[in-house]
Amino acid sequence: MKYIEELQSLKEQLLFKGSIKDVEPFENIVIGGMGGSGIAGKIFQEIYSDKPVHLVDDYKGPSFISKKTLFIALSYSGNTEETVSSLMQAKSKGAYTVAITSGGKIMDLGDEVIKIPRSDLQPRAALGYLLMPLIRTFSLANASEITRTYKALKSMDENNYKCKKYAEEIVSNKLMPVIYGVSPFKSIAYRWKTQFNENGKILAYSSSFPELDHNDVLPLGETYNKNGFCFFVFNSTEERILKRISVTSEITKTKFHMIAPKGDSLFERLFYLVHYGDYISYHVGMLRGKDPSDITLLSKLKQMISK
Amino acid sequence: MKYIEELQSLKEQLLFKGSIKDVEPFENIVIGGMGGSGIAGKIFQEIYSDKPVHLVDDYKGPSFISKKTLFIALSYSGNTEETVSSLMQAKSKGAYTVAITSGGKIMDLGDEVIKIPRSDLQPRAALGYLLMPLIRTFSLANASEITRTYKALKSMDENNYKCKKYAEEIVSNKLMPVIYGVSPFKSIAYRWKTQFNENGKILAYSSSFPELDHNDVLPLGETYNKNGFCFFVFNSTEERILKRISVTSEITKTKFHMIAPKGDSLFERLFYLVHYGDYISYHVGMLRGKDPSDITLLSKLKQMISK
Repeated sequence: MKYIEELQSLKEQLLFKGSIKDVEPFENIVIGGMGGSGIAGKIFQEIYSDKPVHLVDDYKGPSFISKKTLFIALSYSGNTEETVSSLMQAKSKGAYTVAITSGGKIMDLGDEVIKIPRSDLQPRAALGYLLMPLIRTFSLANASEITRTYKALKSMDENNYKCKKYAEEIVSNKLMPVIYGVSPFKSIAYRWKTQFNENGKILAYSSSFPELDHNDVLPLGETYNKNGFCFFVFNSTEERILKRISVTSEITKTKFHMIAPKGDSLFERLFYLVHYGDYISYHVGMLRGKDPSDITLLSKLKQMISK
Repeated sequence: MKYIEELQSLKEQLLFKGSIKDVEPFENIVIGGMGGSGIAGKIFQEIYSDKPVHLVDDYKGPSFISKKTLFIALSYSGNTEETVSSLMQAKSKGAYTVAITSGGKIMDLGDEVIKIPRSDLQPRAALGYLLMPLIRTFSLANASEITRTYKALKSMDENNYKCKKYAEEIVSNKLMPVIYGVSPFKSIAYRWKTQFNENGKILAYSSSFPELDHNDVLPLGETYNKNGFCFFVFNSTEERILKRISVTSEITKTKFHMIAPKGDSLFERLFYLVHYGDYISYHVGMLRGKDPSDITLLSKLKQMISK
């Protein structure tokens, strides 16, 4: 399947009805997940705020995991070795474990499994499938918000000209994208970074306002290799943050491409930003003559470390 | 005071006896802190694992903050506006609040204040003062570990030739440092990033193994602007991670500068790595003819956003 079709399946994924059935009272949530699957956990942590959410992007989770923990394993393939490992550890500590996956080893390990109905996507193109069960379980979006978001993504699938223009700027000048997020979309800045890595095969990094005003701002005021970057900043609705963005740009003489998340609800703005970055990174890959879906190197890596 | 003297005061800071007096039973810890002060919270989150620790690098914390929360505000100056704001919010929600600071507004706000005895340092040079109260409160190092660490830092203050060599490589080729951490030192990779920003006035970014094997690895295998980076990787004691590091380097043909944390205890290795990065970034600033302690731009920023 062409990667563009994978990208465009995101809107359909919003309709996925999976959710956690047995949410017993719990004190904290721990989410295990790596890369393209793990990003759903990062997004959830930022928008869910009723209990502590701890992310595990490694083989082992924290020692506080107990019977009072809801452990959620995110692995699209179901075979990510780090996630299988952290899930098994959580199980051994008595946590209630839920796996969100399309198949693989993890199917047999979770106390509960939310099965994603398609296994032919790249994990990073399955963000909707991985995130929607968390959104539904914790009621973070209603039906009309989901419908509106579906329409917004469809419209972007039909016209993403501006994304292509940004990609052209990056590729023709061999720039490194730097993405500065703002609350509650700091995790989306990291999503963009990883999409530039995987779809565009170029390095990128993300940070966020106001944190970057305490460190990145100093080099931004310098000329040292500064022409090598393309800066994206997500627009904020917070007055203090807006002020910081404009002052930071002004005193460092840095051109920020402002990306305004569109939509009436947090849910819509979130997916709007996600998909916008999907398209820029997709076009970066295409303009570089690379297949955005090619992950030969990842497969080679997995093969070599399993020796 | 010269910045080198600030750097070299780190070992003395290990002897700071501050600790939280009234640790009532609590269910979770929330730490507010930005930039050079906030890094102490990031390090603590990674090495303390008995309860959930949530970090706030913004004006507001999560809604789960309650009477069962221990809220710790880290602000060397005591006037960081984001931290003052998150502390006040936590207080209004009934959390037990502790401020670790050398002075400022925050002195009057915490239920408990741990006063740092010197206020003449840059926040990033006061890491020992900010972190030791957390280390002591939760018994994360014993006296002999602290003594050994003191000696190790002293020895690095006397000889940091290798750090200067790395700095020369970076500056003479106008490279961007990329720092890949490993557990339990992923937060130190971020510390290095911010030190390159503040002391060296150059952009940098950090990520960690195994997460980067799911994204960064793809561009590492490409030639697109790859000559513009200098890669540092912290050595691991975990076999799987070591395998990942060597395979990642091999299949992407990327030269990693391996930094091996020295010391018998986690505490010693942690500060060894911190100080090693302090020195590389310090030398980057000096070699670029910049005063590592100069933060004129930060002051200008603060002034302009307060208008």
